[in-house]
Amino acid sequence: MRKENMAMLCDFYEFTMSNGYFKNGFYKRTVYFDVFFRKVPDNGGFAIAAGLEQVIEYIKELHFDQDDIDYLRSKGIFDEGFLAYLRDFKFSGDIYAVPEGTPVFPNEPIMTVKAPAIEAQLIETFVLLTLNHQTLIATKANRIVRAAQGRAVLEFGSRRAQGASGAIMGARAAYIGGCKGTACTITDELYGVPAGGTMAHSWVQMFDSEYDAFKTYCELYPDNPTLLVDTYNTLKSGIPNAIKAFKEVLLPLGKTKCAIRLDSGDISYLSKKARKMLDDAGLTECKITASNALDEKLIRDLMMQGAQIDTFGVGERLITSSSSPVFGGVYKLVAVENASGDIEPKIKVSENTAKITNPHFKKLYRYYDRESGKALADELCVYDEVVDDSREHTIFDPNATWKTKTLTDYTAKELLVKVFENGECVYDCPTIEQIARYCRDQLDLLWDEVKRFENPHDYYVDLSEKLYEIKNILLNVHGI
Amino acid sequence: MRKENMAMLCDFYEFTMSNGYFKNGFYKRTVYFDVFFRKVPDNGGFAIAAGLEQVIEYIKELHFDQDDIDYLRSKGIFDEGFLAYLRDFKFSGDIYAVPEGTPVFPNEPIMTVKAPAIEAQLIETFVLLTLNHQTLIATKANRIVRAAQGRAVLEFGSRRAQGASGAIMGARAAYIGGCKGTACTITDELYGVPAGGTMAHSWVQMFDSEYDAFKTYCELYPDNPTLLVDTYNTLKSGIPNAIKAFKEVLLPLGKTKCAIRLDSGDISYLSKKARKMLDDAGLTECKITASNALDEKLIRDLMMQGAQIDTFGVGERLITSSSSPVFGGVYKLVAVENASGDIEPKIKVSENTAKITNPHFKKLYRYYDRESGKALADELCVYDEVVDDSREHTIFDPNATWKTKTLTDYTAKELLVKVFENGECVYDCPTIEQIARYCRDQLDLLWDEVKRFENPHDYYVDLSEKLYEIKNILLNVHGI
Repeated sequence: MRKENMAMLCDFYEFTMSNGYFKNGFYKRTVYFDVFFRKVPDNGGFAIAAGLEQVIEYIKELHFDQDDIDYLRSKGIFDEGFLAYLRDFKFSGDIYAVPEGTPVFPNEPIMTVKAPAIEAQLIETFVLLTLNHQTLIATKANRIVRAAQGRAVLEFGSRRAQGASGAIMGARAAYIGGCKGTACTITDELYGVPAGGTMAHSWVQMFDSEYDAFKTYCELYPDNPTLLVDTYNTLKSGIPNAIKAFKEVLLPLGKTKCAIRLDSGDISYLSKKARKMLDDAGLTECKITASNALDEKLIRDLMMQGAQIDTFGVGERLITSSSSPVFGGVYKLVAVENASGDIEPKIKVSENTAKITNPHFKKLYRYYDRESGKALADELCVYDEVVDDSREHTIFDPNATWKTKTLTDYTAKELLVKVFENGECVYDCPTIEQIARYCRDQLDLLWDEVKRFENPHDYYVDLSEKLYEIKNILLNVHGI
Repeated sequence: MRKENMAMLCDFYEFTMSNGYFKNGFYKRTVYFDVFFRKVPDNGGFAIAAGLEQVIEYIKELHFDQDDIDYLRSKGIFDEGFLAYLRDFKFSGDIYAVPEGTPVFPNEPIMTVKAPAIEAQLIETFVLLTLNHQTLIATKANRIVRAAQGRAVLEFGSRRAQGASGAIMGARAAYIGGCKGTACTITDELYGVPAGGTMAHSWVQMFDSEYDAFKTYCELYPDNPTLLVDTYNTLKSGIPNAIKAFKEVLLPLGKTKCAIRLDSGDISYLSKKARKMLDDAGLTECKITASNALDEKLIRDLMMQGAQIDTFGVGERLITSSSSPVFGGVYKLVAVENASGDIEPKIKVSENTAKITNPHFKKLYRYYDRESGKALADELCVYDEVVDDSREHTIFDPNATWKTKTLTDYTAKELLVKVFENGECVYDCPTIEQIARYCRDQLDLLWDEVKRFENPHDYYVDLSEKLYEIKNILLNVHGI
């Protein structure tokens, strides 16, 4: 990669459209775009928003270099005035977003961009790919962490990631979703996600014997070494050699913390056998890590079978979210300011009802039950509506308007916070630790029914009466 | 991303192992690692090697900054001598690789690294993730291109890619696999993959009417404009408005090249209706592009149904290889040089037979039938073996040694070429155009049976007798 500034990581049509907006004067118009998604990966009940910090870094850096201008000019279709405009380009709009680590649901905005048309358009590709990628991985990681029921999950997938940022940012997102660490060193260096790791099979193969390899390792790292025991034969050679090395090197030093790692074979069977062999040798503090083709389904089964595993190292199935490797966040125009400064709501109609957008510049409320603290429903409102949680409030299902619910003892929280105002960042990014903790806390406020892997409860995402009416009027205008 | 040098995109265990090799003197040992894979994604018959150019860039740049050293020191487990060694680190080994665009098969080396132990170890993660990612996408793109039977396929998936390099390098790999272009502008700017694109739904929504949006676009880009016709209603509004705009703007200018894009609804049905409407209007040169949730299976079905589509724009299912999103290339120690400079073959045994490695420093031959030109088989040989294709040569299946084949009228080609020698790059990277053409040419040399989507013919990857014997001796030594 020869560039740090990602301004050109942009679908080409953003430039053809922007050039048009420049020439016809639309570029001065303020427009509103929402980022939202329609479906949770793996048919889950919720997603975990992630990637905002990288969007912020991108927006702050955003500019076009002379190389970029020259490249665009070489296409022979762009106006010189437009190219001059790009040379001085700086994002000047407002951005609202849900904080990273927030559980989010289909059809609600996780980000809203208010900006002059060209600016809003040119950031689309990078904003989407960043939020889509990290939200995908945070969401998948959390499924795996939930399956592990409190056992630690580590992210081990860099080598199978879809490119460098797939590995680096994927490890960051996995930590937000609840992983305790990563094998990806650079993600620790750059983002503070704790990295760790001990040995590969090649370490064992480099020595004349497996025992020599283990002994040398324990001498080198007597504080909590993890030995990989499956290079030759896990039960007949790996575990006996590990036990011998632990006893001969660690115990004389008064050290008792250590671990073995199982990386092939039947993990459930081997872990039980290993536990017994370790316990029989008096190594009751020796932990067992497992790391072969794991995901939430296999971990759930292993837990059910009583596998004796303390730590799960999860690779390719986490870092690519392999069972559902796409997060389908979209970026849709929802409103345009007209000449007199009024906000005109816009809709995208579709023959596919699910693809019809929720128009207008909006607020997103989440309502919590005061007694249990649990999240009850989300509601999309028009930007100028205010919900007063000291008063009763009735919400209804936009797909079945007779289904209503009156909230009484509740609190209302606005989820979208202002991140950029007139192009300046007005948001302090939390640390990665804070984000991960916030995520855990927010997940505690969801009912278990929403967290089920299979056929989870559909959390309510409702429209205010005002927004519902506006949407219907627009549908009638553009109706199919 | 705050770094260009990817030295720290490295699994942490590479550092713990390397620190050990430094302290016990193993770091001076020359070792041999192979990159190979065991299974083709989507159960296909072959993969297309890609990513070598980025591995070369990485190796050339590879060094550890003071920041990196400070970070590692902060872990409190690394020897100061090792950190000093890293400060002066430069790759000094040899690398052999198959050229990008080469069709490759399971269990054969697509890269061999010969280097001092620490150097070989520290590059593992980046080498694997780069080759795995680009090979995955080139292979998937080629499946989609094969399904389109000569119709152009364009890569449109940036916004759903797994991170920035997923988008950028994915678009590069897709071009190697046969795509004709991409929507990803930066991949054109940096790597010369032609980028293009016209309009999103937001363009249409910004205007008072769909017709205004189309007319303005045609005036702006009268040379071959593509109009997106599904913002409101494809048949009732989109196509009629497009026809009107083409006729009113393009025809008076003497222009006849134009296109529409279908992005929702039933593409087969809509394309046939659209074709008729365009033809009836005299716009027989107007092309039809389709771009909704496409992959090789849907394209194959659309082609069978006679859909009237000239160009396929393929998004998330290509850029993430969503039906099979992991390429499982591994990096395994195959030999070590001993004190007297002899090469000792090494093997990794496994209870899973498929996971047993092919030991030793090897050559990879591909044999072609002189008459048809088609590839007959690949053979792994020990590094010092030479196959003379002026003589008869008998190969055999290592899993069923009674299956032999005697080659008579054939040519033998060595597939692994030297890329680095003593740390210096000795390979001229071809242009992206040359790689794509080489890939097409090489694919022409594979039998159709190998290219089938379902249950393709297993291409032969054999072992020489000498290698087979060495492998068996090692298996008996380390036998389970």
